[in-house]
Amino acid sequence: MQRALSTLRESNGKSNFAEWYQTVVREADMAETSPVRGSMIIKPWGYGIWEQIQRQLDGRIKESGHDNCYFPLFIPLSFIAKEAQHVEGFAKEMAVVTHHRLKMSGGVLAPDPEARLEEPLVVRPTSETIIGDAFSRWIKSHRDLPLLINQWANVVRWEMRTRLFLRTSEFLWQEGHTAHADAGEAMAEALNILEMYRDFAETVLATPVIAGEKPENERFPGAVNTYSIEAMMQDGKALQAGTSHYLGTHFADAQNIRFQNEAGELTPCHTTSWGVSTRLIGGVIMVHGDDDGLRIPPAIAPRQIVIVPMLRNKPEDADVLGYCESLSHALSRETALDDRIRVQLDTKDIKSADKRWNWVRRGAPIIVEIGPRDVANGNVTFMRRDQLRDGDKVQSHAMPRERFVADAGNLLSAIQVRLFSEARTRLEGNIKTGFKNFDELAGYFGGAGDDDESGEFRGWARVPWSRPSGAALEEVDERLKKLKLTIRNAPLGQSAASLGKCIFTGQRATQEILIARAY
Amino acid sequence: MQRALSTLRESNGKSNFAEWYQTVVREADMAETSPVRGSMIIKPWGYGIWEQIQRQLDGRIKESGHDNCYFPLFIPLSFIAKEAQHVEGFAKEMAVVTHHRLKMSGGVLAPDPEARLEEPLVVRPTSETIIGDAFSRWIKSHRDLPLLINQWANVVRWEMRTRLFLRTSEFLWQEGHTAHADAGEAMAEALNILEMYRDFAETVLATPVIAGEKPENERFPGAVNTYSIEAMMQDGKALQAGTSHYLGTHFADAQNIRFQNEAGELTPCHTTSWGVSTRLIGGVIMVHGDDDGLRIPPAIAPRQIVIVPMLRNKPEDADVLGYCESLSHALSRETALDDRIRVQLDTKDIKSADKRWNWVRRGAPIIVEIGPRDVANGNVTFMRRDQLRDGDKVQSHAMPRERFVADAGNLLSAIQVRLFSEARTRLEGNIKTGFKNFDELAGYFGGAGDDDESGEFRGWARVPWSRPSGAALEEVDERLKKLKLTIRNAPLGQSAASLGKCIFTGQRATQEILIARAY
Repeated sequence: MQRALSTLRESNGKSNFAEWYQTVVREADMAETSPVRGSMIIKPWGYGIWEQIQRQLDGRIKESGHDNCYFPLFIPLSFIAKEAQHVEGFAKEMAVVTHHRLKMSGGVLAPDPEARLEEPLVVRPTSETIIGDAFSRWIKSHRDLPLLINQWANVVRWEMRTRLFLRTSEFLWQEGHTAHADAGEAMAEALNILEMYRDFAETVLATPVIAGEKPENERFPGAVNTYSIEAMMQDGKALQAGTSHYLGTHFADAQNIRFQNEAGELTPCHTTSWGVSTRLIGGVIMVHGDDDGLRIPPAIAPRQIVIVPMLRNKPEDADVLGYCESLSHALSRETALDDRIRVQLDTKDIKSADKRWNWVRRGAPIIVEIGPRDVANGNVTFMRRDQLRDGDKVQSHAMPRERFVADAGNLLSAIQVRLFSEARTRLEGNIKTGFKNFDELAGYFGGAGDDDESGEFRGWARVPWSRPSGAALEEVDERLKKLKLTIRNAPLGQSAASLGKCIFTGQRATQEILIARAY
Repeated sequence: MQRALSTLRESNGKSNFAEWYQTVVREADMAETSPVRGSMIIKPWGYGIWEQIQRQLDGRIKESGHDNCYFPLFIPLSFIAKEAQHVEGFAKEMAVVTHHRLKMSGGVLAPDPEARLEEPLVVRPTSETIIGDAFSRWIKSHRDLPLLINQWANVVRWEMRTRLFLRTSEFLWQEGHTAHADAGEAMAEALNILEMYRDFAETVLATPVIAGEKPENERFPGAVNTYSIEAMMQDGKALQAGTSHYLGTHFADAQNIRFQNEAGELTPCHTTSWGVSTRLIGGVIMVHGDDDGLRIPPAIAPRQIVIVPMLRNKPEDADVLGYCESLSHALSRETALDDRIRVQLDTKDIKSADKRWNWVRRGAPIIVEIGPRDVANGNVTFMRRDQLRDGDKVQSHAMPRERFVADAGNLLSAIQVRLFSEARTRLEGNIKTGFKNFDELAGYFGGAGDDDESGEFRGWARVPWSRPSGAALEEVDERLKKLKLTIRNAPLGQSAASLGKCIFTGQRATQEILIARAY
């Protein structure tokens, strides 16, 4: 076990972040690749994190008036065809169902030629078209608006180069879809959701993000405005952690989503859509993981406190176990971060030292180790996963049992805050400004552009631009692409101060944008 | 609205149960058919019921030591082929993915011939094979056992004749999969889960069921024993509401799921699988619905108490609304059935009488109506959905506000109990016994066998049999099939008393079984 850990430590460093990431996912037992190319198996520890994310985000989605529904997995090809005609930049990598039966013939199982579907079905890559179709039936009058729907579902977008949690053909997500009577209300919805995502990322995932608007070439196909939250990973790259789209009346026009307004006129709705996915888990790993493995923010840790009894096959084991059970009971009656504390007593039949390192690698926020001496002294010995080491040495703390129980909630809150502060310091300290022209930007990022996977840490740049459009924007994009850079977003709430010149066009800048390498 | 309701009442009666069912689903706004043949759209009220079922069953699954995971939607055809060779009675109606890209060619969008998959993928009809494959990698030693896994997922089994919630090509379910060191432990798991399902059905769904073992010809393909819980619908038919399978070492042998036992020998695991689905919602409708629509057991009602303010566009409206808001607040701080009471204040901009009937049809357990007189008197006027009418007349109750708030939890418990008792009386009073031979059974059910959909109410029969096997069982099955009857299960916990003769074979009976028409 120590070996696995040291392997992990050696393979870390900014020098090989991708390998470090894979190692953490594996060593924390979160997920694995599956025999189905491009799909992953999410194991209990990884899925437990998703359940925490889902439960808490779902609460916020419902509190803000949205109802959950479930729409079909399959979408008729004709729906997709309609959208494809309607939308530029339409993505075509989709799983297509063409048969509804298998047949054994000559000892070989194959799709039955007689069970070919008249119309192929597409496995949903997103549900705008099928939900829009339902909206067109459900919405008749202004009394039916706003219609605020959310769905938790699996979606499929074929991927050749996959990475667990970050890019897989099948992934889990929530997708919100709403219809409104006018542009103002729909735009407010798109921005309220963006704010919900920002607050959720920062408060629950302990992940500081920058909320802003995507440039026009990065909009969701069919969207009038696309907004995102962007998080900085420990290799300096950006991860788009959530998006919210104001779709204008584009989808409503294509799908005939109309309502009778108070004056009796038939009017197209303004719609929005928005989503976050299991990708968030990839972000949590890359924001909070360290040389010893994963560190999970307590708010989403499936187990916040894990108790490891130090058993030695001796008579005093019974006392140690009894003490641990009583401690586990006491802790699970306490609250942290507005929820009951999630405690686990690890009674698995393996060595205590192995258990310790299992939980370190899995990132449990507090790991308690109880031996006969703790029992004798009425103490609790524990490690904080956020401050595991003092130099190279693992730090252990001891505390009277009563005080530990009473303080556990505060301790977990403190860990949550500390993980957030650490990440915020990294984000705020690594957005470089002051670039006067494109060459300066290229010079700053250029040296690290050779290899996407092992670049030196550069962070992001915040630069003024004149918001070029169309072909001019394409040109900017091409220049950035050569440096493996992308425009992340134009942060919201910019001051109206003079910004100088656009570093791309030389014209007067109207806005600042974030530039970064990205996942 | 009154019209829709009376339509519903007229279309009810045992005379047209199928139509009544469809009307309830539609009028309660639970689900609808989708443009994708065989798939349904689960609307907020229907999905809200599923969320309650899911949350509470998930709690029980976790408490009994199972961890949730997520496995891929797609299963390689080779996995299915292996199972098909291995298993008799293998079902072949599956959705098959053959392409991973669409291509626009000549203005027509179609599967791209160049993106044909080397190996077709099957959309999971159930996950035994893909989970078994993972188990074969995860399990090495006796220390890894038992392995207790559950997954909440969508599955697809192609259906031509669909009925919302009862039979659709895509449905939602949970599937448990476990591996054990020996037969005894695996069998205990299968039976513990059956008992969990039984208790859940009775306590949470207020649906009495009979737990028992399926005859050999009704076993899950590959299972050694299949157990089910069976519920009686108001048309007398049986609905299989959950199944639990002991799979022996069949799947372990086929998939190489082996462990090193304490003696160091490589040994196949004994496995189980078990599941319940959105079909449960269909059962709830058919057990509890009445001439006015759905009646939802409070334990799974998305809203347990709905408050309808009687507004008349008059100045006193503000007082009514204020009173309702305060009442809603007070109620949502109370508990019922070990949970916070779920209250909704319905402020939608439609007529109060329409709101009342909307909630009656949707089956909200308690519907409160507040007018100016209630405000003046400090009263709450309410209807119990389980006892809506006295004869033809709708029954309304009035109570001082404080008493209503204090009693709300008890009232909801009482409704839960009453719905269960009503259904239990129906089940217990309609299992006919005492058949001496097959002709008597045929005579009893025969008259009603002409039309599957509009048969007279007959209930079930409990008959002694000698447990014939193989061809003899096939013959029994054929004889029953002519009467549209099926063997449901052999109830657990039968007394060892003498049972007389088997009504099919005339031999000495060893067991009693339940016979019924079924969904």
